[in-house]
Amino acid sequence: MEKRRGDRVAKLPTIRRLPRYLTVLRRLMSLGREVVSSSYLADELRVERIVAKKDLEITGITGRTGVGYVVADLIDAIEDFLGWNNTTEAFLVGVGNLGSALLGYEGFKSYGLDMIAAFDTDPSRIGRMVQGINVFSLDKLPDLAERMHIQMAVLTVPAESAQQVADLLVNSGIRGIWNFTTINLRVPEGVLVQREDLAAGLAELSVKMRRDHE
Amino acid sequence: MEKRRGDRVAKLPTIRRLPRYLTVLRRLMSLGREVVSSSYLADELRVERIVAKKDLEITGITGRTGVGYVVADLIDAIEDFLGWNNTTEAFLVGVGNLGSALLGYEGFKSYGLDMIAAFDTDPSRIGRMVQGINVFSLDKLPDLAERMHIQMAVLTVPAESAQQVADLLVNSGIRGIWNFTTINLRVPEGVLVQREDLAAGLAELSVKMRRDHE
Repeated sequence: MEKRRGDRVAKLPTIRRLPRYLTVLRRLMSLGREVVSSSYLADELRVERIVAKKDLEITGITGRTGVGYVVADLIDAIEDFLGWNNTTEAFLVGVGNLGSALLGYEGFKSYGLDMIAAFDTDPSRIGRMVQGINVFSLDKLPDLAERMHIQMAVLTVPAESAQQVADLLVNSGIRGIWNFTTINLRVPEGVLVQREDLAAGLAELSVKMRRDHE
Repeated sequence: MEKRRGDRVAKLPTIRRLPRYLTVLRRLMSLGREVVSSSYLADELRVERIVAKKDLEITGITGRTGVGYVVADLIDAIEDFLGWNNTTEAFLVGVGNLGSALLGYEGFKSYGLDMIAAFDTDPSRIGRMVQGINVFSLDKLPDLAERMHIQMAVLTVPAESAQQVADLLVNSGIRGIWNFTTINLRVPEGVLVQREDLAAGLAELSVKMRRDHE
């Protein structure tokens, strides 16, 4: 098995597909399967076999002809590539409907994301526990972020306050913002924003459905 | 102003950006602004001006040199293109954390999506109201879908039951599934699945943050 690091050249679609391989591989692992072929993985992800092979190469693992991939090794390699073998602690800001749901979403733990505290400005939410996580006043965030060395935040505040809260996050040393708001945040160089755009997905589905009807 | 329909040639990134133009335009409208330049829109969306111009051309509207776009016209054209001027009624299946949150997410209404009923198999959820929406037993879905001519469903069930529920949806006449589960659904030709993959977004952010640290 050849080991090769390709971090810097990984294409975005590949990176975005990796969690899906992980889901399939973990299921196989739980069923006691030790090896898996690239065609099986390709079929599960609905991609061409060559695409699956190229995707997985990026993690440094190549399958053996006629044998395939060792499931446990491939899981390790993908988790390692994504940095999901080490838990990343994050804050969540904005404990409304979407924020509360994300706090309770079990899936994130298996992606190495641990939301350890939540923040809000609404006095009726501060001091409560939501999904087992403490909700603090937003003005406590800078101090806690520094003391706990938190670098990632999930942003689920209303659109009106999104930029202001993002500024606070940046000034508190947050380096990565997972942005669930509809706002295009302005952040200084070196701060990463990943926008989760539910409306974009809906737009895609709407247009495709309309085309089918024409 | 030239009117031209480009439905069939619209590229995916363009389609996915349209809701963001809509957000900006609706804000301008609420501020009483009547016209807007392509550079303003490009700046708000963090894209090149030529990209914004090309994106918006797809809706059949072209801006006038030195004047720009008429805000109200552009809103109409984008909504028309996306089919969001007519409300699409949808069912939501799976009233867990994420499902409940989506039922309460105000944003969908402004995208023309109206979730009119929810379904679950958990007796403790059936018969209740969640976010003002009735939760019915899943076995009522086929009959209700037919009677109400529902064609779109939002799928927020656990991974284990995702495929089984998708089969039920397809057999009930659902033509578009907005899939929030981690499963790659198998559906017959003619049924559209839009996968909303939160893990993919997190993977992207994780890899970018790790790269920055290297």
